[in-house]
Amino acid sequence: MQTITRLDIRDARILIKGARQRADQIGVPMCIAITDEGGNLIAFERMDGGKVTSSIIAMDKAYTAAGAKKATHEYGEASQPGKPAYGISSAIGGRLMVVGGGVPVVVDGAVVGGIGISSGTPAQDQDVAFAAIDHFMATL
Amino acid sequence: MQTITRLDIRDARILIKGARQRADQIGVPMCIAITDEGGNLIAFERMDGGKVTSSIIAMDKAYTAAGAKKATHEYGEASQPGKPAYGISSAIGGRLMVVGGGVPVVVDGAVVGGIGISSGTPAQDQDVAFAAIDHFMATL
Amino acid sequence: MQTITRLDIRDARILIKGARQRADQIGVPMCIAITDEGGNLIAFERMDGGKVTSSIIAMDKAYTAAGAKKATHEYGEASQPGKPAYGISSAIGGRLMVVGGGVPVVVDGAVVGGIGISSGTPAQDQDVAFAAIDHFMATL
Amino acid sequence: MQTITRLDIRDARILIKGARQRADQIGVPMCIAITDEGGNLIAFERMDGGKVTSSIIAMDKAYTAAGAKKATHEYGEASQPGKPAYGISSAIGGRLMVVGGGVPVVVDGAVVGGIGISSGTPAQDQDVAFAAIDHFMATL
Repeated sequence: MQTITRLDIRDARILIKGARQRADQIGVPMCIAITDEGGNLIAFERMDGGKVTSSIIAMDKAYTAAGAKKATHEYGEASQPGKPAYGISSAIGGRLMVVGGGVPVVVDGAVVGGIGISSGTPAQDQDVAFAAIDHFMATL
Repeated sequence: MQTITRLDIRDARILIKGARQRADQIGVPMCIAITDEGGNLIAFERMDGGKVTSSIIAMDKAYTAAGAKKATHEYGEASQPGKPAYGISSAIGGRLMVVGGGVPVVVDGAVVGGIGISSGTPAQDQDVAFAAIDHFMATL
Repeated sequence: MQTITRLDIRDARILIKGARQRADQIGVPMCIAITDEGGNLIAFERMDGGKVTSSIIAMDKAYTAAGAKKATHEYGEASQPGKPAYGISSAIGGRLMVVGGGVPVVVDGAVVGGIGISSGTPAQDQDVAFAAIDHFMATL
Repeated sequence: MQTITRLDIRDARILIKGARQRADQIGVPMCIAITDEGGNLIAFERMDGGKVTSSIIAMDKAYTAAGAKKATHEYGEASQPGKPAYGISSAIGGRLMVVGGGVPVVVDGAVVGGIGISSGTPAQDQDVAFAAIDHFMATL
């Protein structure tokens, strides 16, 4: 048997709050998704004005980051034409996201969940994801 | 042109809080999904212990209730063998839910969103959905 | 943060061995799937002669049992026409299985994974699933 | 009528063992999938620490390699922008994998199955797939 540590709903709310605060600062209403370490959704918020299409994208970014233990922008680099992971973006029915904004949540060296942000540019999404994680880490 | 009234993220949080309170009372950790009147997800929470399979079911119940302007248990009755809507449960790739726990949120006669609850029995899910709406209506 | 106990690959192999032994006894080559408590696949074997269609059915039975913390035959009873969960069988893109043969693996009161068996009659599938769990429990 | 030679479950286990040994050597826990020559899954193992997202990717790599009688990295080359198979990676609902790690198993000139490896870099996945086939060939 294995023993796993994962985010609970209170952790998920703290991550969402951190994301929302940064999204407000940069003035971009975001879709914010939090999954557990197995990629299953724990919590989600679409801020007023967040993009409808970004709901699923945010969930899939969080799923990818948690499940693959890798930030989605790293997949973006590795999957450019000519690079080794080229073509991975259509895997798992297109759920595997290679666009920035999905980041694993790592505590004590173990992936305990994932966060996915979508509605801004990939750089903005990524910025908000990291800000959320910083906010969460400061509460531990 | 049409003018539409819909739930915002603060309304969604009030609905989730109402659902969570009732779920705590009956001792069943729930998946709670809130959509706007177009069936698009606004907010979601899986309480600690809520079922993984119920994440998608809760979202699809809320989608069905908002989009079809009908509680999912009403579809349950109308889709029994020999009834007019028989077979509707597999529509939309299985997203159209006919199991109780999805209820449209109606304000001033207009559907402004949907709530979907899953993890308990259909009767428990439905009870929590109505409790959430009562809690929300009391705040208007 | 939550702490979760789940099956590891050695546990999964013991469960598969238990299933195989019982399948051999009754003379029905089976598809055997083991998931963790989040419904994600850990191990799978299709015995020589097992049904091709049963590969996915076995995986989805294990997913349902683990994710919903409920044996699939219990859903079968609850989803008959006129019963409360009628129509649930097409949920989650049809992944939610209500046919017997999916059973949660419970250790010390907690669901730590799921097993799904398919290729025989539902009664045979269920029998093999329970035999696998008995075999596993005897090794703990 | 045709007579087909294909892997049986014992062959599949030998391939998995070969993959696991190489994965242990390079220190990367892998998802390992074996299909028959029709692309249908025979056996699967996710080593402890293997990626959740890689379960489906490994199965789809094996499916692609067996079904198309071609290693997935060969598709990677042929599907680069401007090349003849450009865009093939989203075929079959995204199941056709063009990332290295899927290799057909060929015996006496005939494809008898496929192996798919995922969780490492594509180069690591490919290396483990070939090591598994070498291990299997040595037992024939």
